[in-house]
Amino acid sequence: MASLSERTPEIRRDRVFNRHVILSPARARRPYDFKSKSPANPTPPSSTTQCPFCIGSEHECAPEILRFPPNTPNWKIRVIENLYPALRRDQEHNFFTNPDPNFRLSSVGFGFHDVVIETPIHSLHLPDLSPIGVADVLLAYKTRIDQLRLHQSIKYIQVFKNHGATAGASMTHSHSQMIALPIVPPSVSSRLESTKAWFNETRKCGLCNIGSDEVSIDKSAHFVSVVPFAASFPFEIWIVPKVHCCHFHELDNEKAVDLGGLLKLMLLKLSKQLNDPPYNFMIHTSPLDIATSDLQFSHWFLQIVPQLSGIGGFEMGSGCYINPVFSEDAAKVLREVKIT
Amino acid sequence: MASLSERTPEIRRDRVFNRHVILSPARARRPYDFKSKSPANPTPPSSTTQCPFCIGSEHECAPEILRFPPNTPNWKIRVIENLYPALRRDQEHNFFTNPDPNFRLSSVGFGFHDVVIETPIHSLHLPDLSPIGVADVLLAYKTRIDQLRLHQSIKYIQVFKNHGATAGASMTHSHSQMIALPIVPPSVSSRLESTKAWFNETRKCGLCNIGSDEVSIDKSAHFVSVVPFAASFPFEIWIVPKVHCCHFHELDNEKAVDLGGLLKLMLLKLSKQLNDPPYNFMIHTSPLDIATSDLQFSHWFLQIVPQLSGIGGFEMGSGCYINPVFSEDAAKVLREVKIT
Ligand SMILES: Nc1ncnc2c1ncn2[C@@H]1O[C@H](COP(=O)(O)OP(=O)(O)O[C@H]2O[C@H](CO)[C@@H](O)[C@H](O)[C@H]2O)[C@@H](O)[C@H]1O
Ligand SMILES: Nc1ncnc2c1ncn2[C@@H]1O[C@H](COP(=O)(O)OP(=O)(O)O[C@H]2O[C@H](CO)[C@@H](O)[C@H](O)[C@H]2O)[C@@H](O)[C@H]1O
Repeated sequence: MASLSERTPEIRRDRVFNRHVILSPARARRPYDFKSKSPANPTPPSSTTQCPFCIGSEHECAPEILRFPPNTPNWKIRVIENLYPALRRDQEHNFFTNPDPNFRLSSVGFGFHDVVIETPIHSLHLPDLSPIGVADVLLAYKTRIDQLRLHQSIKYIQVFKNHGATAGASMTHSHSQMIALPIVPPSVSSRLESTKAWFNETRKCGLCNIGSDEVSIDKSAHFVSVVPFAASFPFEIWIVPKVHCCHFHELDNEKAVDLGGLLKLMLLKLSKQLNDPPYNFMIHTSPLDIATSDLQFSHWFLQIVPQLSGIGGFEMGSGCYINPVFSEDAAKVLREVKIT
Repeated sequence: MASLSERTPEIRRDRVFNRHVILSPARARRPYDFKSKSPANPTPPSSTTQCPFCIGSEHECAPEILRFPPNTPNWKIRVIENLYPALRRDQEHNFFTNPDPNFRLSSVGFGFHDVVIETPIHSLHLPDLSPIGVADVLLAYKTRIDQLRLHQSIKYIQVFKNHGATAGASMTHSHSQMIALPIVPPSVSSRLESTKAWFNETRKCGLCNIGSDEVSIDKSAHFVSVVPFAASFPFEIWIVPKVHCCHFHELDNEKAVDLGGLLKLMLLKLSKQLNDPPYNFMIHTSPLDIATSDLQFSHWFLQIVPQLSGIGGFEMGSGCYINPVFSEDAAKVLREVKIT
């Protein structure tokens, strides 16, 4: 492997998100002139008694939707309504199909915004749970998706996790979120267009073979973890089912435990290698109103993005990211981290 | 105007970037559980003698490309090479048109990455300059673009500014950057597709009339400033030329002074209203290799985004933003800020 500084920059194109990335090791050496950077992940408040997500504080939360195991005060996972929801479940969806005189498009903000509390205990984080514990969180997403997709107007469900202040989290207690939308959001439409074009060009789903080259990190029975060839972020990881599957919610119990183990391993590796970095993960699945038979080109996956450096005007303006760490180098580092 | 908290959420679609935004005032009320947020904009180091961008430290910088006024040690603006460039000017562009066996696309990282030092004095920021001083910065961009676009392989030039650590800046001395790319980056292609579709639907350029409704803030002789109807960020501002024009680099001296005044006013208003927030601005122009006559649907503009709150996994996953401040409310506030 060439050392980081020997590599010359490269422009790569991601075929899934149809995005360019500039891989540029020289960028990692630039000076930082501001007085202090806040710690990536400030320690949580010492008094944790005021956290509404802790066991015993259920009354401080918005209404519960489901808990696991059901009907017990000793819950392990709760799915609740978000008390400050982006969208309202009590609205009627009515997208303005006739543009107004200025051709502007808007609709009332109908949708569902839920919080998944991943553990009753404030001090635990997701990778502290057992593979079965992580699997239960994944199955809680699935159970809730199965409820939400009964709503005719829900077109897409975004599952995501924010860990650490720099990754956007406002609450320290381990949790993730789900937003069910009456639209197919922009990144999803463009991902579908891009993977469809790729499929038409090659007659193969591009994600079915992603683990077969130098960017792979680890494998489990049913999943592979890789650093994508055109990673937008340093140490970005994708966990991809080995067998073609378009919807996350098709996950069964056996695969959930298998994925739980691999997700836990990836989060532990990031934490060990990068000193507990803030991170986001996102589940990229398919829209709900398209038949599975029409989705040969759409393969769901889970994307993990450690937040190591922010972005700037270049990325906001162009949609093109600058990543100082080559994918092959990040994958090699992550392959070799030992978790005991 | 309805008070912020009375409004119900709305989903709006931006026709320029083809992006959805969720406008949701309820989100502004959520609690923040982390111990401390770093000050948005930490004070610069007290000893400024080590700043390479200050007058007298030119030898600590990468090579100079141009200065204004030329041939004088008492420069007002310098355009220099970035010492840690994302792309290299000494490479030959060779995008792999034949995909490799895994259908991956990459090319060597050819391109130009320059820094525009906006003032010789460390303590001054862009809006501290006179309208003519700001105009000179805009004309420095134009002059450098006119050099760069002579290169056949340069397809797009992204001009951007990062102000404050949270907006990505690593240097405190007032500056902006230009990256000249051998590709049309993803956000630009999708903006062109979207504005073209809009044009075909209405037979009008959507940005030519943007100032005629409730989202407008201020006007100058040749420009209007607005909060876009589907703003992705609270207090996002667009400055748009009144007369259709596809390329920023067509700016002449008179318009530069006019734009300099309006840009200064917008930055002063944001600074006063939002307590000197970190911000980015980006110039959204057209690719270089398309004839002006083919760009009736592409109208350049300058976008200013104050960085008030970060983003999280929802935005990263879906490309859909959550903005707690309605565009009409932000525009009203900005219209009424008095700068004396
Ligand atoms: N008592 C209670 N009962 C129920 N719910 C409660 C509650 N107290 C707080 N909540 C909710 O819990 C959620 C915690 O979520 P996160 O910490 O992951 O980030 P948040 O959604 O605040 O914003 C981050 O993620 C979003 C989405 O990506 C970005 O828009 C944003 O910029 C970023 O900071 C909040 O949405 C909050 O509304
Ligand atoms: N002596 C010297 N001579 C010449 N140039 C010098 C120099 N010393 C430093 N520089 C350059 O000056 C530039 C200052 O730029 P900014 O402060 O706007 O942000 P930066 O580019 O570091 O990163 C922000 O913007 C980029 C692009 O948006 C994002 O990728 C990134 O995450 C974000 O932090 C740096 O690019 C640096 O390489």
